[in-house]
Amino acid sequence: MSDPIVPVLDHLASRQAQIESWLKTFLRIPSVSADPAYAGSMDEARRLLCERLRAGGLDHVQLLDGGGEPAVYGEWTGAPGRPTLLIYGHYDVQPADPVELWRTPPFEPTLVGDRLYARGASDVKGSTTVALEVVFAFLAVLRSCPVNIKVFIEGEEETGSPTLRPLIQRHRQLLAADAVLSADGGRASAVTPTINTGARGHAALEIRLRTAAKDLHSGRYGGGVRNALHEMAALLASLHRRDGSVAVQGFDAGARPPTPRQRQDTAAFPYDEAAFFSDVAGASHGEPGYSPRERITLRPALDVNGMWGGYTGAGAKTIIPSLASAKLTARVVEGQDPAQVIQSVLTHLEAACPPGCELDVVALNPGSPAATLPPAHPLVTAAEAVLQTPGGARPVHVRLGASVPITSLFKETLGIDTLMFGFNLPDEDVHAPNEFFRLSSISQGLQAWTRLLDELGRYQPSAFHGN
Amino acid sequence: MSDPIVPVLDHLASRQAQIESWLKTFLRIPSVSADPAYAGSMDEARRLLCERLRAGGLDHVQLLDGGGEPAVYGEWTGAPGRPTLLIYGHYDVQPADPVELWRTPPFEPTLVGDRLYARGASDVKGSTTVALEVVFAFLAVLRSCPVNIKVFIEGEEETGSPTLRPLIQRHRQLLAADAVLSADGGRASAVTPTINTGARGHAALEIRLRTAAKDLHSGRYGGGVRNALHEMAALLASLHRRDGSVAVQGFDAGARPPTPRQRQDTAAFPYDEAAFFSDVAGASHGEPGYSPRERITLRPALDVNGMWGGYTGAGAKTIIPSLASAKLTARVVEGQDPAQVIQSVLTHLEAACPPGCELDVVALNPGSPAATLPPAHPLVTAAEAVLQTPGGARPVHVRLGASVPITSLFKETLGIDTLMFGFNLPDEDVHAPNEFFRLSSISQGLQAWTRLLDELGRYQPSAFHGN
Repeated sequence: MSDPIVPVLDHLASRQAQIESWLKTFLRIPSVSADPAYAGSMDEARRLLCERLRAGGLDHVQLLDGGGEPAVYGEWTGAPGRPTLLIYGHYDVQPADPVELWRTPPFEPTLVGDRLYARGASDVKGSTTVALEVVFAFLAVLRSCPVNIKVFIEGEEETGSPTLRPLIQRHRQLLAADAVLSADGGRASAVTPTINTGARGHAALEIRLRTAAKDLHSGRYGGGVRNALHEMAALLASLHRRDGSVAVQGFDAGARPPTPRQRQDTAAFPYDEAAFFSDVAGASHGEPGYSPRERITLRPALDVNGMWGGYTGAGAKTIIPSLASAKLTARVVEGQDPAQVIQSVLTHLEAACPPGCELDVVALNPGSPAATLPPAHPLVTAAEAVLQTPGGARPVHVRLGASVPITSLFKETLGIDTLMFGFNLPDEDVHAPNEFFRLSSISQGLQAWTRLLDELGRYQPSAFHGN
Repeated sequence: MSDPIVPVLDHLASRQAQIESWLKTFLRIPSVSADPAYAGSMDEARRLLCERLRAGGLDHVQLLDGGGEPAVYGEWTGAPGRPTLLIYGHYDVQPADPVELWRTPPFEPTLVGDRLYARGASDVKGSTTVALEVVFAFLAVLRSCPVNIKVFIEGEEETGSPTLRPLIQRHRQLLAADAVLSADGGRASAVTPTINTGARGHAALEIRLRTAAKDLHSGRYGGGVRNALHEMAALLASLHRRDGSVAVQGFDAGARPPTPRQRQDTAAFPYDEAAFFSDVAGASHGEPGYSPRERITLRPALDVNGMWGGYTGAGAKTIIPSLASAKLTARVVEGQDPAQVIQSVLTHLEAACPPGCELDVVALNPGSPAATLPPAHPLVTAAEAVLQTPGGARPVHVRLGASVPITSLFKETLGIDTLMFGFNLPDEDVHAPNEFFRLSSISQGLQAWTRLLDELGRYQPSAFHGN
């Protein structure tokens, strides 16, 4: 067998203990970005990463500053003519609170069977380590990589990446690439291989309704004037039909109807509907003609996230409120312009607003569109080739209902698509006590990333653009 | 002319300067019940009143304790077989804040033309003084009064009379009377004489709606589950029709339809609709078939006083709220049982609550019924005789849209009706800077109260009961 990746895989297999050991070192650093008390640990995590990137054979290892926590950068660009992949991960972790609920110390990695317990193990130091070790293995064994690599590990993911946009914009030249491989964003199932081919976009609106110059005494005016809460309730109630579908004209304008393949993949997705809804003690409810899973991934949605007005303290207060407020967000799908979608909501509300009431827009966020990878995108076909099971079942394409900020951000700032290729699993208690990562995911991940880089090396750089 | 009240009126006319002078002394005492810093002044006001009641010829002058600010009591019961009238007033006043907006010191009574400026002048030391001086005048001139008198001046009106109910219950025997004459509750117009013949009752309800065990991520669940705010908006919107009328079955059950006389009086009431609504920059809106004034006094009304749920802070938060809350109050009219009315609202909400949603009653206050004086009630006919203008136009009967707590309280605790016979006017800035009372209202009030006691003396005590 002359496949050049075999020695790389052998090398990785032989290094599994060292990789685990280095990951434990990484996990012992409490790099909590949300708490300034851990600033020293954030520094320490960056130093450890820089040292490992240099030792692994990357060039131009440096910190990139965007005004907040710096990102760690390193590159290997020895494959001219081949695609350049930006490998994304993050070195910061969630706070460990509530610490008393941890069965083992959160920053003392503890192996129990196949599970390595530690804060950040699953999210996302484990998968980040996997991606990096594969690059190092190619360079160690073959002195080259099938693709050009730019490693980009940020330190603000758990605080919402507040300075990531300016950081990327400031370093656009350095970060230029053909696509992103994200170590964040994990597998949906340990059994059924899945490829994430998209996420919904979003847009937001906050409105305020005024019916009078001030709150009025309900004894003096009750029955004779408009009440801002009655009017707001009627406005918000008009947004949906009783079956849960959105009643706003134009709300689903442009929404690409799910393809037969998407519907087939959604049905094939290992998703236990009863468990999903019982988990939150909420009942399935939504647009007729779509399965629950389709509603939350392939169809646009409109939610009132907050609503308030009048007296909300203890006891009763006999006022007729003059002001009512509401916050709304839309989730949009492939083919939709989020700005137009949120405008359709506003237009609906304005048309429904009765005479004598004043509707103000407090905030309007035109948001970002859905991120999608078409089935023929090289990131998808390469991942399919890698994840295909020996029996030949093709991986299921899945979509996220939520927006993935970094995916949108890379598309907007660098114009490139992202493949999420993390190896964490849904049950690993991320953001909760007793977070863990599976050792078996490390070996599976090392093999998959090795094959993925090899596969991606077969494409022309131009194949990643214009999809 | 042998009318025995002529010398009483003459005596009062001759004492006008002394009465004004005593009122100023009363007004100089900052008897602010809301602020413990004024506890000494509250004592001082009580001492001044007790001293004046004794000097005026009342017996058994004493403080009545209900656990809070004591009330001042005195009586004259020298007319056996004649009705006993409880004269109600209050010696406490609103805080003077914002003091910087007063053009004259709030506790230094200042006369400008016909207007006597001071905190408490209109609400309600002026009218209280008028009522007391009339009793003193009868006793001074005739050594007797046309009716038995029990003076009851409370000190907690401006803080919502928190201990008034136990105070009255503790002193039921002492306070037993045939009717109440209230110095509080003023005239609606200086030109058109009016008699207040009733007030709406009320009841209250607070509900909470739950759609899931916890708030959900709108990315993960948006479009696939119920949203508590959507459901609450639909529930609240279903309570009213678009024209403002209440859509709850049974909500106006029992409501006595306005009589032709009530409709005529309501139309005759000196009420400037345009000014009333422009004052609050709210538009007139409500049940078809009724004038604006009828809607707010003769018809039941339902208002949402507060509503909240989800994220109400700054910015956006992409949650699907699992909880929503609302506070509601009903105003009920003559003939209605407030407990039944509020139950009809709850029944409507429960019937409209969709499957999978949990509706909880957080609080239900069965409230108190409307207080009404029928046209033939001796308190009304006596007041009509007194207020009849020389030209012969009969006083207009008016009703309040609001509930009057003391009226309900006297009915519930002592079983007796109340006539509001204060002489303040709507423009006198009560509860606001630069409150004033009119000297002309003092002389008008002294004459009217003199005639009223004389008129009431012509009725049998039993005439005041069972109306």
